[in-house]
Amino acid sequence: MMNVPLRVTMMLEHAERYFPKKYVTSRTMSGIRRFTYREIGERTRRLSSALVKLGVQKGDKVGTLAWNHHRHLEAYFGIPGAEAVLHTINIRLSPEHIAYIINHAEDKILLIDQDILPLVEVLKDHIPNVEAFVLMTDDDKLPESPLQPMYHYEELIAGGDPSYTFNDKIDENDPVGMCYTSATTGNPKGVTYTHRSTVLHSLALGLTDSGGVSESDIIMPVVPMFHVNAWGLPFAATWFGTSQVMPGPQFTPKLLAELIEMEQVTLAAGVPTIWLGLLRELDQGSYDTSSLRAILCGGSAAPRGMIKAFEQKYNIPFIHAYGMTETSPLVVLSRLKSHQMDLDQEAILDIRAMQGYVVPGVEMKVIGANGEVKWDGQEMGELALRSNWVCDEYYKDDDKSAFSDGWLYTGDVVTVDEEGTIKIVDRTKDLIKSGGEWISSVDLENALMAHEDIFEASVIAIPHPEWQERPLACVVLKPEAPGRVTKQDIQDYLRPMFAKWWIPDDVVFLSEIPKTSVGKFLKRALRDRLKDHYSVINN
Amino acid sequence: MMNVPLRVTMMLEHAERYFPKKYVTSRTMSGIRRFTYREIGERTRRLSSALVKLGVQKGDKVGTLAWNHHRHLEAYFGIPGAEAVLHTINIRLSPEHIAYIINHAEDKILLIDQDILPLVEVLKDHIPNVEAFVLMTDDDKLPESPLQPMYHYEELIAGGDPSYTFNDKIDENDPVGMCYTSATTGNPKGVTYTHRSTVLHSLALGLTDSGGVSESDIIMPVVPMFHVNAWGLPFAATWFGTSQVMPGPQFTPKLLAELIEMEQVTLAAGVPTIWLGLLRELDQGSYDTSSLRAILCGGSAAPRGMIKAFEQKYNIPFIHAYGMTETSPLVVLSRLKSHQMDLDQEAILDIRAMQGYVVPGVEMKVIGANGEVKWDGQEMGELALRSNWVCDEYYKDDDKSAFSDGWLYTGDVVTVDEEGTIKIVDRTKDLIKSGGEWISSVDLENALMAHEDIFEASVIAIPHPEWQERPLACVVLKPEAPGRVTKQDIQDYLRPMFAKWWIPDDVVFLSEIPKTSVGKFLKRALRDRLKDHYSVINN
Repeated sequence: MMNVPLRVTMMLEHAERYFPKKYVTSRTMSGIRRFTYREIGERTRRLSSALVKLGVQKGDKVGTLAWNHHRHLEAYFGIPGAEAVLHTINIRLSPEHIAYIINHAEDKILLIDQDILPLVEVLKDHIPNVEAFVLMTDDDKLPESPLQPMYHYEELIAGGDPSYTFNDKIDENDPVGMCYTSATTGNPKGVTYTHRSTVLHSLALGLTDSGGVSESDIIMPVVPMFHVNAWGLPFAATWFGTSQVMPGPQFTPKLLAELIEMEQVTLAAGVPTIWLGLLRELDQGSYDTSSLRAILCGGSAAPRGMIKAFEQKYNIPFIHAYGMTETSPLVVLSRLKSHQMDLDQEAILDIRAMQGYVVPGVEMKVIGANGEVKWDGQEMGELALRSNWVCDEYYKDDDKSAFSDGWLYTGDVVTVDEEGTIKIVDRTKDLIKSGGEWISSVDLENALMAHEDIFEASVIAIPHPEWQERPLACVVLKPEAPGRVTKQDIQDYLRPMFAKWWIPDDVVFLSEIPKTSVGKFLKRALRDRLKDHYSVINN
Repeated sequence: MMNVPLRVTMMLEHAERYFPKKYVTSRTMSGIRRFTYREIGERTRRLSSALVKLGVQKGDKVGTLAWNHHRHLEAYFGIPGAEAVLHTINIRLSPEHIAYIINHAEDKILLIDQDILPLVEVLKDHIPNVEAFVLMTDDDKLPESPLQPMYHYEELIAGGDPSYTFNDKIDENDPVGMCYTSATTGNPKGVTYTHRSTVLHSLALGLTDSGGVSESDIIMPVVPMFHVNAWGLPFAATWFGTSQVMPGPQFTPKLLAELIEMEQVTLAAGVPTIWLGLLRELDQGSYDTSSLRAILCGGSAAPRGMIKAFEQKYNIPFIHAYGMTETSPLVVLSRLKSHQMDLDQEAILDIRAMQGYVVPGVEMKVIGANGEVKWDGQEMGELALRSNWVCDEYYKDDDKSAFSDGWLYTGDVVTVDEEGTIKIVDRTKDLIKSGGEWISSVDLENALMAHEDIFEASVIAIPHPEWQERPLACVVLKPEAPGRVTKQDIQDYLRPMFAKWWIPDDVVFLSEIPKTSVGKFLKRALRDRLKDHYSVINN
């Protein structure tokens, strides 16, 4: 058999040849425009040749700081087309972290959206390796900027060669892209994607039982293109000739609802907070969302109530997926199996609320306290993954603790039911290991937050002289509640729902739970503050 | 990124883990039985370990002479599971050719269906390298046979290890299967498939816009498993947890219609003659075929009338596909693009009757007399293909004439329309090259055979002193016609349909057209007999 390198540029070539009139709808600062794949192809080839003229060489990193729009899509193919590495930079990171990753990746050129420019200008003196800046702007002229030399994207590609030919003799294991994880501790860690991993991941997205991305779809990636390549959807959609709707900068739920109706979007992808916002908008307004064949949701676990609203009130199938920067990201997806189609609505919701099972091409194992767990939906273990689109190291990083014997240990604690469907119950670092058994902090938190008097709650593992660790409930009561809810009340409330040894030994009442910049509970801070709680109690 | 070898056995592991209760319905000599993927998995592992015990080593060839049934499916995974090469042997070849390919492939063991045994017994003294025979029989006991040593399949696997572990550290470029082409001239040529090619081809079959093979399908490969791996469908279907219906030996149109109704088949695959037979059966009987979401048809061009009957009378979408032993086989498939959905029925039929466009992962070019042809639906050229599932050599064969610069030249002459849709117009060897232009023998034949007085017709290229070649029409008239149809009549009939220079200079009336063993016109014989026709005429 021929051994033809799997390469990212082949996807664009396919779109140019077989779907030249299909188009990308792109919202930028100045409005909404459409570009056919023939135009995208020509502009991309111009970009590749312009980058080569600028001195970009094989393996060089070119960073992007940009929203979802046609120019970013051109960069997705044009940077690899110059045999360089597409480094998408998460603009929501702190300036320190952005500077760190630009330096760590050794980005040679940065492609920047106009509204993101101020963010980069403050880094001016901290990113000495960057040799040139390209502004992706709709304006005719470049603004004044301390970042020099600066090029105007449209002028740059106007000078490029529209018939530039992509090299088809590359090594499929060459790097094609990079993305850094937003670590909760320490510096972000870089993940390098290859041509091979990206092409295989795209095929997985096109499988009928997976994303099912099709030429007949009109797809709207709301998940940012600076976040794990918008889950790889721009690659797959281009390859399969799918129309794409790029929502651009600073979108609102209202804008998304309007785009869905106006563009007849069939598949939209994003994180739960996006869909919570959209749901509120749909409840208030009057939109036709009947074109949607599915919502694809990942990034964190979607609340069951939200899934129910989309499925039952708006008749939009809600596909829950699981992945991470390290996994390209699609590895697990919740599709109903054919024998589950006839279950009652509540049973179906139970399945929809779980993360799903691995897509073809991904292997998983779940390692608990005593080796691989039973598939009984009860026993907890850490999810480990193996696939051609899962990383086996971090870029220039000696920390190999997540990688063992060819598997990635995700740090996510899951149960597996008899269908192989996983449910995330915790992060390993948040899990409570009590007397050789595991307790899920997430399960306890969910129960606590369903209590009518509790505003928010976090359950953390506290060292315990006898049991190794024991759960401690940290609770913020609603303003009207204080005084009448006691530790005893809360323990009694939990007792019917959990095994006796799961019940937190104590409850701490707080005025607020410390949070990260993106609103996640900062359990580390709580643990640090309360680490001696049980030894104090026991003395 | 991890570099995990793409391997065939991973597909079966996926089915065992995530679809253990889905099943394969298998018709054998003694009736219809069902096996779950858990059972198929266990039996396959037993087979692999039993083959290893029999002395099979990495890279050894194990041949199969068998119909479509569960045991053959087990061999599809069990032979690769023993790190051997699955060599499926076309039982419809002549005994001489079967002996030739068994010897050429150096098959060490043969797995044989009971009703095919007599076919192999006559070869007894001509296949000295075969060390053992395994009979795939439903009977408890082995029949008397001169083929020794002979093993009983069920007894053999009963002694195997149901928890045998497949090696996951293979090289994905290792051979996994072999199939020989049924050449019209000379000896058959062997094509070797690899783990990589088979896995990538299976992914292509699962894409929504391609075969769309899904867990919710119930698939019936009528195309034989001894013919290009039943188009790879058993691999893809197993991987994706699809139920499979294996029609077994000597099936009839009636049996196929019954299986479709009884088993609620959603996707059936086979060559045009199968569907012509089924169509007659549906017209005569009363069957519920509403479960069928599509018929997949390849192997040779399907007549437009048949496609129309399935699409319009029975409301069954008819997917035309193109491939060959050398291409795994799926490379081109006729799917309507979204903008074609609203065309009128005749325009849709025109598209359905063409071969389609290349599936993702396949590149094509069409080379005419003056380089790459225009995509105008007119200019003819030879179809060349490049893909990870297209071969770049024949097994142990010095003839490299079909391979050039990394491409396979298919020998098929096609036109390409502006959508990239190809239509096969001829074989290169049957094409008529007249005065620097190309004439399609197939187009002329189709027109001739539509004449009310013509029973069959073949148009061949005959050397011509002035024009290099000129078309000669060889015509068999219907019994009631002779006497009143002349050369002049036939030329006049063709004139309105073709350019002047396409019209055959002469018509030869024959009592029959010589044919191959499988009923194809043997143009070579006609050409040999008539090669001096125009030089004689001109002298």
